[in-house]
Amino acid sequence: MAVLTLLTDFGTADYYVGAVKGTVLRLADPPPAYIVDLSHKIAPGDVEGAGWVLAAAAPSFPAGTVHLAVVDPGVGSERRILAARAGGMLFVAPDNGLLGAVLATDPEAEVRSVARDDLFLPSPGHTFHGRDRFAPLAAALLSGVAPAELGSTITNPVRLAGSPPQREGGRLVGRIAHIDRFGNLITDLPNDWLSPGPVLAHVAGRRIDRRVTHYAALPVGEAGILAGSVGTLELARRGGSLAKRWDVRRGAPVVLTQVEAVEAGAADSE
Amino acid sequence: MAVLTLLTDFGTADYYVGAVKGTVLRLADPPPAYIVDLSHKIAPGDVEGAGWVLAAAAPSFPAGTVHLAVVDPGVGSERRILAARAGGMLFVAPDNGLLGAVLATDPEAEVRSVARDDLFLPSPGHTFHGRDRFAPLAAALLSGVAPAELGSTITNPVRLAGSPPQREGGRLVGRIAHIDRFGNLITDLPNDWLSPGPVLAHVAGRRIDRRVTHYAALPVGEAGILAGSVGTLELARRGGSLAKRWDVRRGAPVVLTQVEAVEAGAADSE
Amino acid sequence: MAVLTLLTDFGTADYYVGAVKGTVLRLADPPPAYIVDLSHKIAPGDVEGAGWVLAAAAPSFPAGTVHLAVVDPGVGSERRILAARAGGMLFVAPDNGLLGAVLATDPEAEVRSVARDDLFLPSPGHTFHGRDRFAPLAAALLSGVAPAELGSTITNPVRLAGSPPQREGGRLVGRIAHIDRFGNLITDLPNDWLSPGPVLAHVAGRRIDRRVTHYAALPVGEAGILAGSVGTLELARRGGSLAKRWDVRRGAPVVLTQVEAVEAGAADSE
Repeated sequence: MAVLTLLTDFGTADYYVGAVKGTVLRLADPPPAYIVDLSHKIAPGDVEGAGWVLAAAAPSFPAGTVHLAVVDPGVGSERRILAARAGGMLFVAPDNGLLGAVLATDPEAEVRSVARDDLFLPSPGHTFHGRDRFAPLAAALLSGVAPAELGSTITNPVRLAGSPPQREGGRLVGRIAHIDRFGNLITDLPNDWLSPGPVLAHVAGRRIDRRVTHYAALPVGEAGILAGSVGTLELARRGGSLAKRWDVRRGAPVVLTQVEAVEAGAADSE
Repeated sequence: MAVLTLLTDFGTADYYVGAVKGTVLRLADPPPAYIVDLSHKIAPGDVEGAGWVLAAAAPSFPAGTVHLAVVDPGVGSERRILAARAGGMLFVAPDNGLLGAVLATDPEAEVRSVARDDLFLPSPGHTFHGRDRFAPLAAALLSGVAPAELGSTITNPVRLAGSPPQREGGRLVGRIAHIDRFGNLITDLPNDWLSPGPVLAHVAGRRIDRRVTHYAALPVGEAGILAGSVGTLELARRGGSLAKRWDVRRGAPVVLTQVEAVEAGAADSE
Repeated sequence: MAVLTLLTDFGTADYYVGAVKGTVLRLADPPPAYIVDLSHKIAPGDVEGAGWVLAAAAPSFPAGTVHLAVVDPGVGSERRILAARAGGMLFVAPDNGLLGAVLATDPEAEVRSVARDDLFLPSPGHTFHGRDRFAPLAAALLSGVAPAELGSTITNPVRLAGSPPQREGGRLVGRIAHIDRFGNLITDLPNDWLSPGPVLAHVAGRRIDRRVTHYAALPVGEAGILAGSVGTLELARRGGSLAKRWDVRRGAPVVLTQVEAVEAGAADSE
């Protein structure tokens, strides 16, 4: 049972997603049993956002799933196309940092630069490699072509700038890695960096000192800190978007302090 | 041929829908032949809206379809999870009223409170039961686990407040149950409560006295009353959203009066 | 392997798309191997926009694919329903011009007016032929019913008004046929009408004289002319929507002039 997922910034009003799926169904032999949309609403050109979504969704899929991710502002340029194996799955994407978050999860990850122009479709232009190059590559993998047949391994895929979260004693310093539909602020700070007990969060000049296990444990209108579903801490508000309320954007710095470490200063907020 | 449908308030920009589908495909044996999205654009936490869409869409599906509906503001709390059988199909949803409209359609409906923690996935937090609890339950049903194996029947599922529509002679009193993309106002008044002949509708301080069989029978810019596709009466305007034009929200009261009953007062509007 | 595609103006927040899919899965024997959404975000009633998307996406699909397109402001009226064969695929749509762009691509296209009321579902009203008439017709085709069994051929399908693009020497006169998510302006001027060498484009009172092969070849913030993915020329801006920046709407006239023909006047813009 082969599964193909798609992640793009194509939106769903255009013909682009349909054309990619049609091409895969036309070329793959056998075609995949399932084509699953991860999202097509990545902001245009938002390579980093796409990488986060891909790394968050991929682990739920069956081993062997082929993930095709096309957020590709460099379409038509000399940027490379990557085929990677990580976490027991296959990935095809432009070499622009999109696969960074996925590759970071698997020290054994194997990345190849695709050199198989023979697989590409003749193209009326150079604006839609999703259909003319990426879809045929995904179809090839689904048809049983091994990644090794697509190109040689490389050790220098493009990586996005960015610093990993830091832990210094009871002080955790990270950033808002994703803001979801509900306006929850998902940090890059691992859930298990937080010890039991009180904690203070600072983000966007605001402070949160409630720690809860689930959204409904918050009083309506109040914000809290909780363990999130991708394994990192979240800041959330019950009854509406915290991101909108405090005007927080992705990338905003966030600092969590375990109250043991700031006992004096935080006492009045308990 | 097993069909799974999904109905959530997750939106389509996040990783949530993909993770639910991936989990079902990973766990179900055999996996469903089809996964069909009913909608992921339910407003965040809009349990009643989700219930309406589910009851409207479900009857079109083949017998045996599994409908998974996750609009779950109480995620992580002690709210129950329900597995129900109604109208020849299976339903999994949180116990918050979401299944109310579906259960109302089948007096033989059977509702169970799920007590199978062994099926749940280990979870990094308590914010995403869609992936960690609901998806495995749907996968279990698709794999042939009988609803009776999931938990005992209950008779007290949570029901949403709300009064059924009323009919008093030629006067029908109901409310706007749904507003669709086209701005049509879909009432909760059964099509067949209306006798042949003239009718007056009052909604949001406005009056409609045209009765037509289809949208294009209306003059451009005019509003009318017509028999709708879920079996209840609709108010619609040709050439644009009636909801926006009159600023009507879901839940607004609507009164229909058959003109026989108000002949004198309505004569001037004919 | 049968593929069904869907193209509608139903949006994805309502129950409509789900009900169409459920109906096809309930009625088709065998059901299609795949149901692919082309788009459900066609603007309400935008028949021409739907026709463009359908013609752009269809050629990517396997031979024999059934394309069901329902943008149908005349639902419930006496408008005909068409079943067509073109380019090795099958199409079902209302007779309102939606199929015009597809039919124009295949001089051998065969169009039939459906006369099979026996296939239609009993309907609570006349507002949702997508579920009650179009879905059963698509299911019939997927079940092996030949188009000839659905109705007689006709030669007068409804055609939308509109003039084809013109070429006079080095001067190409067309219009903006589609604006995509990225704000690219896709013209109706064939890529191969442009000879090598400099060119000037005029649209919405603005002028573009850059010609590039792909988006990233443009300096950030600059607009250019390039060969597009459906075989027609595009105008695009790097780093944001050109359509929004210049407030260009679909249908806007566009004139391209090969600079040989305007050498004197254009020299200062080189």
